[in-house]
Amino acid sequence: MSIEQENHHPGDSRFFSKSGPYTIETLVKETGAQLNSPDVLTKDIQYTGIAPLQIASSSEVSFLDNKRYLPLLAQTKAGVVIVAPAFADKVPQTSHALVTSNPYLAWARVATLFYPKTPAKPGVHPTAYIHPDAVIHPSVEVQAFAVVMNGVHINKECIIGAHSVIEQGVQIGQYCRIGNHVSLSHAVLGDRVTLYSGARIGQDGFGFAIGEQGFVSIPQIGKVILKNDVEVGANSTIDRGSVKDTIIGEGSRLDNLVQIGHNVEMGRCCIVVSQAGISGSTQLGDFVTIAAQAGLIGHIHIGDHARVGAQCGVMSDVEAKSDVIGSPAMPFKEFFKNVAFLRRMAKSSKGKEDSQK
Amino acid sequence: MSIEQENHHPGDSRFFSKSGPYTIETLVKETGAQLNSPDVLTKDIQYTGIAPLQIASSSEVSFLDNKRYLPLLAQTKAGVVIVAPAFADKVPQTSHALVTSNPYLAWARVATLFYPKTPAKPGVHPTAYIHPDAVIHPSVEVQAFAVVMNGVHINKECIIGAHSVIEQGVQIGQYCRIGNHVSLSHAVLGDRVTLYSGARIGQDGFGFAIGEQGFVSIPQIGKVILKNDVEVGANSTIDRGSVKDTIIGEGSRLDNLVQIGHNVEMGRCCIVVSQAGISGSTQLGDFVTIAAQAGLIGHIHIGDHARVGAQCGVMSDVEAKSDVIGSPAMPFKEFFKNVAFLRRMAKSSKGKEDSQK
Amino acid sequence: MSIEQENHHPGDSRFFSKSGPYTIETLVKETGAQLNSPDVLTKDIQYTGIAPLQIASSSEVSFLDNKRYLPLLAQTKAGVVIVAPAFADKVPQTSHALVTSNPYLAWARVATLFYPKTPAKPGVHPTAYIHPDAVIHPSVEVQAFAVVMNGVHINKECIIGAHSVIEQGVQIGQYCRIGNHVSLSHAVLGDRVTLYSGARIGQDGFGFAIGEQGFVSIPQIGKVILKNDVEVGANSTIDRGSVKDTIIGEGSRLDNLVQIGHNVEMGRCCIVVSQAGISGSTQLGDFVTIAAQAGLIGHIHIGDHARVGAQCGVMSDVEAKSDVIGSPAMPFKEFFKNVAFLRRMAKSSKGKEDSQK
Repeated sequence: MSIEQENHHPGDSRFFSKSGPYTIETLVKETGAQLNSPDVLTKDIQYTGIAPLQIASSSEVSFLDNKRYLPLLAQTKAGVVIVAPAFADKVPQTSHALVTSNPYLAWARVATLFYPKTPAKPGVHPTAYIHPDAVIHPSVEVQAFAVVMNGVHINKECIIGAHSVIEQGVQIGQYCRIGNHVSLSHAVLGDRVTLYSGARIGQDGFGFAIGEQGFVSIPQIGKVILKNDVEVGANSTIDRGSVKDTIIGEGSRLDNLVQIGHNVEMGRCCIVVSQAGISGSTQLGDFVTIAAQAGLIGHIHIGDHARVGAQCGVMSDVEAKSDVIGSPAMPFKEFFKNVAFLRRMAKSSKGKEDSQK
Repeated sequence: MSIEQENHHPGDSRFFSKSGPYTIETLVKETGAQLNSPDVLTKDIQYTGIAPLQIASSSEVSFLDNKRYLPLLAQTKAGVVIVAPAFADKVPQTSHALVTSNPYLAWARVATLFYPKTPAKPGVHPTAYIHPDAVIHPSVEVQAFAVVMNGVHINKECIIGAHSVIEQGVQIGQYCRIGNHVSLSHAVLGDRVTLYSGARIGQDGFGFAIGEQGFVSIPQIGKVILKNDVEVGANSTIDRGSVKDTIIGEGSRLDNLVQIGHNVEMGRCCIVVSQAGISGSTQLGDFVTIAAQAGLIGHIHIGDHARVGAQCGVMSDVEAKSDVIGSPAMPFKEFFKNVAFLRRMAKSSKGKEDSQK
Repeated sequence: MSIEQENHHPGDSRFFSKSGPYTIETLVKETGAQLNSPDVLTKDIQYTGIAPLQIASSSEVSFLDNKRYLPLLAQTKAGVVIVAPAFADKVPQTSHALVTSNPYLAWARVATLFYPKTPAKPGVHPTAYIHPDAVIHPSVEVQAFAVVMNGVHINKECIIGAHSVIEQGVQIGQYCRIGNHVSLSHAVLGDRVTLYSGARIGQDGFGFAIGEQGFVSIPQIGKVILKNDVEVGANSTIDRGSVKDTIIGEGSRLDNLVQIGHNVEMGRCCIVVSQAGISGSTQLGDFVTIAAQAGLIGHIHIGDHARVGAQCGVMSDVEAKSDVIGSPAMPFKEFFKNVAFLRRMAKSSKGKEDSQK
C-alpha cells in the first residue's frame, strides 16, 4: 500500500485496541454532561468509537473544542457531539449533543472510555538486566534491555520501557510509566509519574567554578523529586540539585525538550511547554504556565497562577496571577502596546523621510 | 598521538571509505557542469578525493559556495573547482573549473561519487530482539540491541540502528535509515526516510483537560506519517496526532532538536532548522522554511514557499511566499525598519537628555 | 514512605558515598582560604559533610555564593562557612569563616573532598557488545548493553555508560566519562572528556543542495574533535564537519539541549548554556560565553571573551570582549536603553491618546 493511501481515521488497529461499544447513557454518566437529543434520534445505538467532526460517522462520538472549527460542526455526521452550552444550538439535528461547561474534560473521559491506558503486563523481559539488589514488585512490567541497578525500588504496576536505565538507589512509586530510552538517576518518584522517551533525569547540574587552569566541577549532591502525577516529555532534561533538591510539584506537566536546571522548585499543576527552559534555583508557585520556548534566569520566583508567554525572557520575579511576555518580560498589555506603537512610529517616520526626499 | 596533532583533512579513513579515483570526464558527466580548462592543464589526471579550497591538492576537487571564501579561491591548489558562472574567471590557472548555476548541487553529486552511502548489510545482529510477529525483509540490516515488536513491517534494504526500538505495528518503507537510540511508535514511514539518533517519533502529544483534581490526559489516538524522503534530525521529537495524524510531507527535512506537536501537517520539501518548534494542529504548505529557534503557535496556517526567520514567534497565519521575522512575526522589511528606527530614536533621545543636563 | 516526607539534606546515602571526616586544617589546606576563627570555637572538630546555609549543622561546611542569600548566613548553624572577604564579618560567631576571593572555587574543592568522583571499575559488563577489533584498555569500565565497534580505541580509566554506542573508528583519551544512551561516531576525544546522557555526537550535519526532484544530501566527511576536558550536556547534539572538522576547544563546557552545527570551531574554555544553538561554520574564540537559548547564524566569528546574552540572536561578527544581547544582537547598554525608551514613549503616547479622547 502506498503511504498516500493511508487511512487517517483515529484509533488505527495496528497501534490501538479499543473498548466498547457504549450507549448514550454510559456516555452521559461518564461525562456528567447534559443530553440534548433531537426527537428524531433514537437512544438505542451502540457507539463504537471517537473521531474528529469532519470524519466521524453516526456511530461515533466527536467534540468541538475551538470555535475556529464551527464550520465543521455544521456538517458533521457524528452520532454524538460534546459541546459547550454556547454552541449547543449549533449541533445538527442528526447528532445527540452532550452539553457541558468543560467539553475538553468530557472528551477526555469519553476518549479514555474507548481507549483506556494499557495496564502493566507483569514480568521482566528476558533481555533486561536487573541487579540482584534491586527490589521490583511482581506486578511490574520491565521491557527489553532495560537496566535496573542496585538499591532501586519499583512499586506496583509500573512499566519500565525498553532500553531505559534506572540507576542506583532510584525510588519509583506505583503506576509509574517510564518510556523507552529514559535515563533516570538520583531521583525519587511519587505515584503515577510518566516519563516519555529519552527524558534525562538526575544528571549533574551545570555547576563549576573558575579556577586557574580552567573550570572546576562542583559535585552535585542533591537529587530530583518528581511528585505524584508528574509528566515529563520526550528528550526533556532535569538536572539534580547541587546542595538542595530539584523538585517538580504534584501534577505538573512538562512537554518535550524542556530544560530544568539544578535546584529548581516547581509547585503543583504547573505547565511547561516544549523547548522552554528554567535556570538553576528558580522557584515556581502552583498553577504556573510557562509557554513554549520561554526562558527563565536563575534564582527568581514566579508567583502562583502566573503565565509566562511563548519565547518570553524572564529576568526578574513575576507576581502571582500576572501575565508576562517579551524579552525582557513585561505585562502582556504593555508588550502588545509597545509593538503597536513601534510599528506606527516606524511607519510614520518612513513617511516623513520619503516626503523629505 | 596528541589530539592537537589530529589531521583535519576530510574523509578520515578511520571513519569513511572512499570510491574512485575519477577522471575529469566522469566529473563533468556526473555534474552536468561546463568545463573551463586552462590550456596548461592536462585532462588525464585521476582525481582521488574532495577537500575544502584551503587544503585541497592538485588531485582533489573543491568548490566555492559562499563569496565570503573568495580569498581562499585565489590561493587554492585544488585540481578542480566547482563554481558559479560569476566566479568562473576567479578560478586560478592551476585548476580546472566546473562551472554551473547550482554549484552546491554539483558538489553534492561529486561528493556522493567519492563517498557513496553505505548500503545495508543484510542480517540481524545476534543481540537484537525481534518479536516473532514482526516481518522484516531479508535484505534489512538490524544492528545491536535493536528491538522490533509485533506487527512491525520493515521493507527492503533498510538499516535499523543499534539500540533503536520499533514499537508495535510500525510500518517502514524501503531504503529507510533509522539511527541509533531512536524511539519509533504509532508511525508509518514511506521510502528512503532517515531518522537520526535519538529522534522520538510517535509519543503522546501534550494534550490534557483541566479537571477538578488536576490535569486529565486525553488519549492520543492518531499516528505519525513520515512520507518518502523525509529526514528527522538528532534528538528531535514528533508527537503523534490526537484524533488526526501528524504528517510530514514528502522530502521535508527537520534538523536537530526540533519539536513537532500533535496534528501538525507539513507539505512537501519543507525545511525546519534546529531548535524550532511547531505547536499542535498548525499546517504548513509546500517548500516552507522555518529557521532555527523559531516558534509557531497552534492552529495556524503557513502558506507555500513562506520563510519564517530565526527566533521568529509566529502567532497568526503567514501568507504564501512571504518572509517574516521577529516576535511577534512581521515582514522582514518592517522588522529591520523597526529595529533601525528604535536605535535611531533611542540614540537621539539619549542625546537630548544629555544636552539637558 | 510518602514522597512528601523525603529528606532534602544533600548527599543522600542512597545515591552518594561520602569521604571524610576532615579537620579545619585540612579544609584550610585544600582551599588556600584564610581562617577567621571566633575565640569561642575549638578547631578540633571533625567535619562530616557539606550542606546549604539553612540546614547545615555545626559539623558541616557551607558557603555563600550570592548576596541574595545573606539573610540565610545570619541564621546559619554551619560549623564552617566559605565566604568572600566582603562578607567575612557577616559570618556568625558560631561558625569558622574560610575567607577567599573565590569562594565558589573553594567550595568546589571542599565538596570534591567529601564527594570525590567515583573512579572507573575496570571490566566489561557481560551484556555489552564489544567488536573484536576494538581496543579497550583493561582499566576501562564498560557498562550494561554498551556497544563498541571496530577500530575504536578507549584509553585508560574511562567509563562507558550503559546503552551507549561507540561507532567505528572513534578515539577516546584517558579518564573520559561517557554517560548512558550516548551516540558517538566520527569523533576523536581528548582526555577527561565528559558526555552526559543522550548526547549525540558526530551525526551528519544539516547539509543538502536543492535539486530538480527535491533536496540532495551532501556527504558529510569531516569529524568531531572534542579536546581535553570538554563537557557536553544531556541530549545535546554536535554534528560532524562537512569537509572540515567540528572542533570544541579545551575545557569548553556545553550544557543540556545545545545544538552545534557542522564545521563550528570553538576555542578554549567557552561556555554554552542550555538550549543555545550555533549554526554551521561559525567560529568562537577563547573564553566566549553563550547564554541560554541564544542563537548564532552560520559563518560568523565571535571574539575572545565575548559574552552573548540569553535568547540573543546573533547575525554578524561579535568583537572580542564585547557583550551583546537582543535579537538582532546589540551591545547590552544599547539593548536596555532601547527597551526603556520604548516603554517610556509607548506610555506617553498612550497618555496623549487618552487625553485626546
